Amino acid sequence: MTNREFELHPRLAADCRVLGDLPVSRLLLMSDSRFPWCILVPRRPGLRELHELNGSERGSLFAEIDAVSRALLDRGAEKINVGALGNLVAQLHVHVVGRRSDDDAWPSPVWGSGPARPYAPEAAAALGSALWDAVRDRC
Amino acid sequence: MTNREFELHPRLAADCRVLGDLPVSRLLLMSDSRFPWCILVPRRPGLRELHELNGSERGSLFAEIDAVSRALLDRGAEKINVGALGNLVAQLHVHVVGRRSDDDAWPSPVWGSGPARPYAPEAAAALGSALWDAVRDRC
Repeated sequence: MTNREFELHPRLAADCRVLGDLPVSRLLLMSDSRFPWCILVPRRPGLRELHELNGSERGSLFAEIDAVSRALLDRGAEKINVGALGNLVAQLHVHVVGRRSDDDAWPSPVWGSGPARPYAPEAAAALGSALWDAVRDRC
Repeated sequence: MTNREFELHPRLAADCRVLGDLPVSRLLLMSDSRFPWCILVPRRPGLRELHELNGSERGSLFAEIDAVSRALLDRGAEKINVGALGNLVAQLHVHVVGRRSDDDAWPSPVWGSGPARPYAPEAAAALGSALWDAVRDRC
């Protein structure tokens, strides 16, 4: 899959740190230190819904969700929340969030859980780099 | 896949109407008339996270999500929300919810959107039957 014509939605670009490109998706880290919160954005232009993915894309996206989930569990998450909503940002994107029973929103979803708490810049860089290395090795 | 040893979590059984068994999942209709809200529960005992599914189960589950999504869009949904959370009910289950820009929670997620509004019994039976027929024909 090429990146030609793919552009990350401006709101995702503003709210997240880009970690890199996996076989199907661009991997992002949400700028919210309350939760280890990744977002996978399949790079085919115009996608809005999960069921619009073709068979090959579905398999790769599932493998990418798997890789991100395991990377988050390895770093202390107790539970993974996966969601494709898109009510505010139409561009198809899949949230993969590491949850803990002592996190700020537990047991509620992270969506609608109040304002983000930004990372210190060096903390975002370190976490992003560690997650990228762990995910890339699994894809 | 057999149903041996699979038991639907009591909370899902209490909150939903069982529509039937698809190749991998039991299909439920959430008893909340504010949203056309389906839940897919893969019938392998002990599953808690999406990434625990094997390759064959992943493909089938994605096809079932696809079938439910298209059935909901055919009945007037404008957007599909898909989520696997499991913070309250550990048994793996995938929400597939038809959303509209005039629904009670838009653009927020349905989770945490306040108390369910039950269907009239005949309305739940009619919607459940129509959804089951539409989904089964696609799986």
